Amino acid sequence: MNKMREYDVVILGSGIAGSMIGAILARQGLSVLLVDGVAHPRFAVGESTVGHTSAMIQLIASRYDVPEIAHLSSHRRIRENVSAACGVKRAFGFVYHRDDGSQHAEEANQFVIPPLMHGLESHLFRQDVDSFMFQVACKYGADFALSAQVEDVAVDDDGCKVKLKGQAEIRCRYVCDGTGFRSVLASKYGLRAAPDALETRSRSIFTHMIDVKPYDSCIPKRYHGMPIPWFQTTLHHCFDGGWVWVIPFNNTRAPVNPLCSVGVTFDCDRYQKTNRDPEDEFFEFANRFPSVRQQFAKARKVRPWVSTDRLQYTSTKTVGDRWCLLVHAAGFIDPLFSRGLALTMDSIFFLADRILKAFKADKFDEKDFAFIDALSLGGIKYHDQLVATSYRSWKDYRLWNAWLRIWALGEAGLDQLRILKAHLEFGKYGKMEALEKLEDVIHPGLLCPDSLQYEELFRKSRQAIAEATGGARSAEEASRAVFKMIDDAELFAPNVGISDPEVRVFGHNQKATLRAFYWGRWKAKDHVKKYYDMEMLEVLKLMSKNFRDLFDPQLKLAEHQIAPSP
Amino acid sequence: MNKMREYDVVILGSGIAGSMIGAILARQGLSVLLVDGVAHPRFAVGESTVGHTSAMIQLIASRYDVPEIAHLSSHRRIRENVSAACGVKRAFGFVYHRDDGSQHAEEANQFVIPPLMHGLESHLFRQDVDSFMFQVACKYGADFALSAQVEDVAVDDDGCKVKLKGQAEIRCRYVCDGTGFRSVLASKYGLRAAPDALETRSRSIFTHMIDVKPYDSCIPKRYHGMPIPWFQTTLHHCFDGGWVWVIPFNNTRAPVNPLCSVGVTFDCDRYQKTNRDPEDEFFEFANRFPSVRQQFAKARKVRPWVSTDRLQYTSTKTVGDRWCLLVHAAGFIDPLFSRGLALTMDSIFFLADRILKAFKADKFDEKDFAFIDALSLGGIKYHDQLVATSYRSWKDYRLWNAWLRIWALGEAGLDQLRILKAHLEFGKYGKMEALEKLEDVIHPGLLCPDSLQYEELFRKSRQAIAEATGGARSAEEASRAVFKMIDDAELFAPNVGISDPEVRVFGHNQKATLRAFYWGRWKAKDHVKKYYDMEMLEVLKLMSKNFRDLFDPQLKLAEHQIAPSP
Repeated sequence: MNKMREYDVVILGSGIAGSMIGAILARQGLSVLLVDGVAHPRFAVGESTVGHTSAMIQLIASRYDVPEIAHLSSHRRIRENVSAACGVKRAFGFVYHRDDGSQHAEEANQFVIPPLMHGLESHLFRQDVDSFMFQVACKYGADFALSAQVEDVAVDDDGCKVKLKGQAEIRCRYVCDGTGFRSVLASKYGLRAAPDALETRSRSIFTHMIDVKPYDSCIPKRYHGMPIPWFQTTLHHCFDGGWVWVIPFNNTRAPVNPLCSVGVTFDCDRYQKTNRDPEDEFFEFANRFPSVRQQFAKARKVRPWVSTDRLQYTSTKTVGDRWCLLVHAAGFIDPLFSRGLALTMDSIFFLADRILKAFKADKFDEKDFAFIDALSLGGIKYHDQLVATSYRSWKDYRLWNAWLRIWALGEAGLDQLRILKAHLEFGKYGKMEALEKLEDVIHPGLLCPDSLQYEELFRKSRQAIAEATGGARSAEEASRAVFKMIDDAELFAPNVGISDPEVRVFGHNQKATLRAFYWGRWKAKDHVKKYYDMEMLEVLKLMSKNFRDLFDPQLKLAEHQIAPSP
Repeated sequence: MNKMREYDVVILGSGIAGSMIGAILARQGLSVLLVDGVAHPRFAVGESTVGHTSAMIQLIASRYDVPEIAHLSSHRRIRENVSAACGVKRAFGFVYHRDDGSQHAEEANQFVIPPLMHGLESHLFRQDVDSFMFQVACKYGADFALSAQVEDVAVDDDGCKVKLKGQAEIRCRYVCDGTGFRSVLASKYGLRAAPDALETRSRSIFTHMIDVKPYDSCIPKRYHGMPIPWFQTTLHHCFDGGWVWVIPFNNTRAPVNPLCSVGVTFDCDRYQKTNRDPEDEFFEFANRFPSVRQQFAKARKVRPWVSTDRLQYTSTKTVGDRWCLLVHAAGFIDPLFSRGLALTMDSIFFLADRILKAFKADKFDEKDFAFIDALSLGGIKYHDQLVATSYRSWKDYRLWNAWLRIWALGEAGLDQLRILKAHLEFGKYGKMEALEKLEDVIHPGLLCPDSLQYEELFRKSRQAIAEATGGARSAEEASRAVFKMIDDAELFAPNVGISDPEVRVFGHNQKATLRAFYWGRWKAKDHVKKYYDMEMLEVLKLMSKNFRDLFDPQLKLAEHQIAPSP
């Protein structure tokens, strides 16, 4: 057991979020105690990274001088420094299945993630990644109490008291709650908002499986004409009412981990929870779609299925004097678009700085943490809108094909440039203001938080889709309207084809990125041009450094790995 | 939860042993349920393999046609197919520390393990290896009930009933108990033998740590003049009263796992258990010896310390009609010499065949499993003698230097040849008799179970050491007597130097192996010569195949990895 009875910070929860903030604060000289109800290693979901996640991981590592955190910023770095059991994510993959079971070749999209600021994205085998992060916290001196039950947390003007079952009281000056859904502080302070505060209404069934076939081997060769094997994407099988995720950990040339994360998330009103076996329920979804059925024909679970209740929750507030909730303790929407880890990294990036400053000033006022509150609650709110509209759009591929662009523009558009700029300025000149400027946003938690134009596009497109699914206008018309709005907004370089419904592959390669930069610096409107205002030589250096990750021999699959199965 | 209520075999415990026998039986067509009180992944100890372990793993894989099991037979195969988080074990390393804290350069030994039948040995990161084995069982169709509490097991003439808490009764025809120390069946049938049935009396304190220094960096360069860096051995710091283990997982050129397994095992009468913090207790041992203290100067735990009670237990019987205990459910002695996993593999190798035959004949009589009982109880008994004598011998390095040879002769001597022979005959001609012949032994569970001469040497040397520590003769005299007995027994090729107290490095390289083969085939006494009666061409083929593992670039440490730390 921990010997000290006094710490600067007690962190409840030692998952990736709790451990990462623990590592940062310990590295920066605070005494830290990580408290957790269980121990490591342990299963966790939240496996897929996106550009925002990895970019923020890099910024966190350099801002707080914890180089080990940067090991999590690309697939190659993870494989070489953290765990060989993680998969690669070269693209988001979306395959749309119609209600009658058919899957049309042209109703599929890929969003290819270019290795710009960091390398390629990953499928994180969370048991390894979370253990690693916990170990880094230990390395920098964080103490821990595992398999410990929190009996009470009490905060007053002088500090906090944390009482663990069967142990003497622990005193500290600040408490971070990273305990997720069952948040200790949210239940103590009654912070959970009414469930109807959120639009999305979904539940999920998931597990890890062995012998899941690569989707490429379940469809005719070159059926979709896509650039990246589906096997190397985070694959979403979308249908009216829900989506199936397929996140392989074995999708490199010589994988060591044969597993695949598998789950289905779906409308919890249309499919109400019963006492049925979750495995049967999962296969009922999968078997509706012939190619999906084939993908799981030989698959066997290697852990019990988890069947959740409704996934969504949020909070009325997330910070207070001497305490805060990390974002998953504050709320959660849906695994769609892998937004959970991205929000977590945002929350850590901005929170750690505030905690350190609070310790310097010995002042732990709620109001100094207001931005964190806005960021968490905004992140949850906007993700809710993004997801709820996605579920609606699955009624008709045309709606989905349009809405998907709104997400992609936000996920990989201007926001990545904003972060890249801060990264370059901080990296080259050590300008702390460059990082602090990232707080100058209009809509905290939105995918592009500092663009009025993006918010308008997001809001109006969402409206158009709701009208179509509500019956006020046709899918064709609403979809055309969204595409027109995208075109008019001129938020991104035309060569990428984001506003062309016939272009099913978006995101882009290095060459297209350079053309987009050319467009951004010379042709874009002023409110877009400012995003491209950075030193091109530095951008080129970074691109060429990360470009080599595309030639990683582990990416090249052998023919037999994705060949049609007999 | 599992849907079936009837299985052929229910296996209690899904650790490496339960899962491996589950994989075998499922692969061979039986319906199998694995039951466990917890889930994967999870921490486990038993991390170091020896030649016998890896050789038996290979035999198990080929005998029962489960190729995945063979992935565990060498460091390289594990790294490429199971987990990159495991360390390499190129040698057993023994460093003797005197009571006054001094460590003399000539009081250290290495037992270098030559890659003969398989590649190099491993430091298994058990959470990964156990998960892998469990997944293989799932792949072949084993069902599982995890986080399940066994309420009762009842066996009658018709079959067995297993009752799990909160679930309907499960019926099966055979029950294997792989639940270790807290064995369900041992407690149900009252099988535990009186504790004074065993000589060894030790307890242990252990954990995993980060930032443990390689021992090489804590001593002057080339201090011991050893061929293998201590960093790449399973390192034993032996002292009068106990031993410290150091099992690094980060001892290759580009490791992904920064951890090291660390523990101390010691006389539980001399050091009685109190309520003290186990970390303090561990460091009290480590700090007595300056170079060991330095090795742990910066080390930090990444899991809670475990402090056990007395480790030793055994059983009065281990098999019955329709049930058996796997060896760790039957008994355990001490982690010394990494014998636990070796005994487990023996038990699985011989047991699976009997279970399959029992199902074929639909006859589950205790008497058909008598050999398994003899093997388990013999294994425990002889290991007890081996360990108890080792603890005694640490009073004086001269005794230990002699006794160590008795172990080495057994571990790597004639027994490896016996297994190699069976492997070649079965591999080349598919002769099942070659495998069955491995049961023709005189002393089941002894390191060399089929050699009268070895048993005599073992017994008499043990006696000599006991006399020396009992005061009946001097250490010098007893040690000389043991060396003389080794010399007289002529059990091994003289070129290896096993009977020369000045030779501190034993085991051997490929060249020495070939010379030993020459000696064995032409010069050895008849009772030894028979071990060498195998096709030399096949031996050479195997040796040259495995020889390349010595040139694995991952083995070559960078200078800075073992450089003296500042």
